[in-house]
Amino acid sequence: MTKVAVLGARGKLGSAVCEAVESADDMELVARIGRGDELSAITDAGAEVAVDVTTLEAVMGNAEFCLSHGVHTVIGTSGFGPDRVEQLEAWLAKAPGVGAMVVPNFSVGAVLMMRFAELAAAHFPSVEIVETHHERKADAPSGTARRTAELVAAAREQAGVGPAPDATTSALDGARGAAVDGIPVHSLRMSGSVAHQEVILGGVGELLTIRHDSLSHASFAHGVLAAIRGIGARPGLTIGLEDVLGLA
Amino acid sequence: MTKVAVLGARGKLGSAVCEAVESADDMELVARIGRGDELSAITDAGAEVAVDVTTLEAVMGNAEFCLSHGVHTVIGTSGFGPDRVEQLEAWLAKAPGVGAMVVPNFSVGAVLMMRFAELAAAHFPSVEIVETHHERKADAPSGTARRTAELVAAAREQAGVGPAPDATTSALDGARGAAVDGIPVHSLRMSGSVAHQEVILGGVGELLTIRHDSLSHASFAHGVLAAIRGIGARPGLTIGLEDVLGLA
Amino acid sequence: MTKVAVLGARGKLGSAVCEAVESADDMELVARIGRGDELSAITDAGAEVAVDVTTLEAVMGNAEFCLSHGVHTVIGTSGFGPDRVEQLEAWLAKAPGVGAMVVPNFSVGAVLMMRFAELAAAHFPSVEIVETHHERKADAPSGTARRTAELVAAAREQAGVGPAPDATTSALDGARGAAVDGIPVHSLRMSGSVAHQEVILGGVGELLTIRHDSLSHASFAHGVLAAIRGIGARPGLTIGLEDVLGLA
Amino acid sequence: MTKVAVLGARGKLGSAVCEAVESADDMELVARIGRGDELSAITDAGAEVAVDVTTLEAVMGNAEFCLSHGVHTVIGTSGFGPDRVEQLEAWLAKAPGVGAMVVPNFSVGAVLMMRFAELAAAHFPSVEIVETHHERKADAPSGTARRTAELVAAAREQAGVGPAPDATTSALDGARGAAVDGIPVHSLRMSGSVAHQEVILGGVGELLTIRHDSLSHASFAHGVLAAIRGIGARPGLTIGLEDVLGLA
Repeated sequence: MTKVAVLGARGKLGSAVCEAVESADDMELVARIGRGDELSAITDAGAEVAVDVTTLEAVMGNAEFCLSHGVHTVIGTSGFGPDRVEQLEAWLAKAPGVGAMVVPNFSVGAVLMMRFAELAAAHFPSVEIVETHHERKADAPSGTARRTAELVAAAREQAGVGPAPDATTSALDGARGAAVDGIPVHSLRMSGSVAHQEVILGGVGELLTIRHDSLSHASFAHGVLAAIRGIGARPGLTIGLEDVLGLA
Repeated sequence: MTKVAVLGARGKLGSAVCEAVESADDMELVARIGRGDELSAITDAGAEVAVDVTTLEAVMGNAEFCLSHGVHTVIGTSGFGPDRVEQLEAWLAKAPGVGAMVVPNFSVGAVLMMRFAELAAAHFPSVEIVETHHERKADAPSGTARRTAELVAAAREQAGVGPAPDATTSALDGARGAAVDGIPVHSLRMSGSVAHQEVILGGVGELLTIRHDSLSHASFAHGVLAAIRGIGARPGLTIGLEDVLGLA
Repeated sequence: MTKVAVLGARGKLGSAVCEAVESADDMELVARIGRGDELSAITDAGAEVAVDVTTLEAVMGNAEFCLSHGVHTVIGTSGFGPDRVEQLEAWLAKAPGVGAMVVPNFSVGAVLMMRFAELAAAHFPSVEIVETHHERKADAPSGTARRTAELVAAAREQAGVGPAPDATTSALDGARGAAVDGIPVHSLRMSGSVAHQEVILGGVGELLTIRHDSLSHASFAHGVLAAIRGIGARPGLTIGLEDVLGLA
Repeated sequence: MTKVAVLGARGKLGSAVCEAVESADDMELVARIGRGDELSAITDAGAEVAVDVTTLEAVMGNAEFCLSHGVHTVIGTSGFGPDRVEQLEAWLAKAPGVGAMVVPNFSVGAVLMMRFAELAAAHFPSVEIVETHHERKADAPSGTARRTAELVAAAREQAGVGPAPDATTSALDGARGAAVDGIPVHSLRMSGSVAHQEVILGGVGELLTIRHDSLSHASFAHGVLAAIRGIGARPGLTIGLEDVLGLA
């Protein structure tokens, strides 16, 4: 039984993490930390792993406390630049055997989709992305679609793949999508949808399509549990879920 | 056995039509008319139905000959305005019992997709179109996608359906597609694809998707045969395949 | 403002119907009738339309009351045989101008999918159905898939279409699906899915696919409102949503 | 310029391979070997790589000749058991620096689909396979679908994943597909289709789908060229395209 503390436990995502930990057979939820609570509650409860889903402001202070007290920490955030990474590594250097895992996306399906797209990118001349989200979404394309396009473009560039063939000479504005690092991305906004993405790759005589449908935030729980289970065997810094999913 | 003449028989489409007629059990191909051939060969051969897949220039002269000689005529063309329709009706008025069918699209699947999209259009707040074609196509969106968007938009307007809900406030250029009569259309150009279209309709808690994949021009043959079989029972002017497909 | 009574108002479906009626601008919810309540509350409240989502046992008594008191009644049920239909017609004969609508399926998307499949069925040699539901479903295929297969098979028989071409000579048990009136139906049961169905039709060189994704019961509300809005103009008996959706 | 010999050059697949080699900028086709031709033509022409698409009977003799003469050999076959593999390794031991690559499937898209399915298999409780082929196919499921199911089942077993959740208590025969190592496989046979496969993986709140559409045998050419380009840097035995595609 791994003893787990959740930081940011009273938020929407934090509540879902608490629920997932409680329903796992191999874990015990020993501390729910919310805004204003003392961090000492983490060590008092004997937590071995802390999951931090608080805010970009709070997360570094929390990490310093956890790592200096020998508690592995899983940090769910997409906003870490080189400065923060360097700081984490400095703290980890003083805490041998302790691990920190920074996870920009806990959705196992989304992480696999992006990684598969990256692996396939150099093997097909054509690639485009179609993402569909509910009608209340403010930005287009989605963050996941932009990130996927960047990964695909980088993999193609590294392999020396040129631009996709395209004979279009007459197009209505917008018909060919938005170019993200040269990859066309098409965003649909539909009532009745949730969060969906297709990466379509085409070569002579064949198409390969990788599709992810995310119907609820419950899907995040699986990634959180995988991170908690994997961090004990990974001292030092790990970025992303790829490693614990066997994709690194 | 219906006796059939094909006009434009030496072109690519015409050859396919000849082949389809020859392979049908209930038809006999009695005349193949090419550029420079005498139209009298149609009546000499006793043709009951003429299929005209020539050019916009030749087609009216051909029609006048056929209708005035009591030969039903199926005209494959997408370029008929009110003037030509009026002229056809004048000729038909002098030829009781004779039929003319003007068919902009012989693809049964495409015709059904467009009609279903039109029938469903008023029942969902959201609707978008995604079409994918091979990388050698010059225009975007495709003609079929534009036509579908126009039909869908007209059906929504007639039913008093307002614009689709869309909270997008920040978008990259092109991400939300091209607007055709207010309907977003997204065009993909992919190596490995042929001609594909999806019409996606969304309402609270549900999506309805109508998809057509056209893998070869052989699919046109089915529509041509349906037109030949149906024209005998339809004196006067018929526009489109919808009627013989039971959709009118 | 149409005054509406809901029968079976305290059940799960009934609550959703009440909510939908209350959120519609052109309706007023005037009575919520549950088990044990007096039916006179319907007329006391001046209801013009009753929506009955009770049980197969209760529904005929409710209908007799409503129709004899001049209240249009929308009955959500899939279990009506010829006896019940005949009885309804007898009551309607004594209530000129009053309508009864028996609706086996309130999902607009599902009704459209089935109707489109039926309209397309005779135009393609091949047709198969793939349905996917959550892992807690007890029966396979789903009721909607069976019903779709029956409608498709009947349309093909009426048009004289023979069996689909199939050269399979060596197959593992179950690979080719279950045959429902000769139509292959394939049932997937997947964690992460809700209720999805595809009808795939194939002819030379082309495929037509009609897909319905139902993500929540909220989709029923739209069909219920359409029925309430349409019944006033439809005295006598109406079976199914097709007529109010413009599909009959 | 890599000098290439093709063995089985007069067959359908061999012709396609010759065409692909000729159209590649970095290769030269120096020998086309057919039934009855002398193998010495391979060395006479100075071939550096031989591509063997002959028959299961001819292939071992060809390999012995090529490897003993220092010619790398790419063997397209799916029927190699341990005996043949051992024999190849014996010949390779005597030919330092020379490579043999045994490739059961030259389709890059199919190889990627299978590998991605294998990588994802352990991360989702549910997985099923749907494959669609033209109506002239004799066996169901397809060889690719069976192989995919075997790989997925092995990956799940290795990770200790139990059977997929399935509450079905009442099913028509065949509705739930064929079980291949416990993985449900559904086979559609449709006019208008070519060769298509979907692997659908489901977990709480999300689905991941990997789809491959193969529209023509031309897609094999890409895999053949990748093998020719990669074999020079891979002395000894290589099984499958995975390694040259960066997936091993």
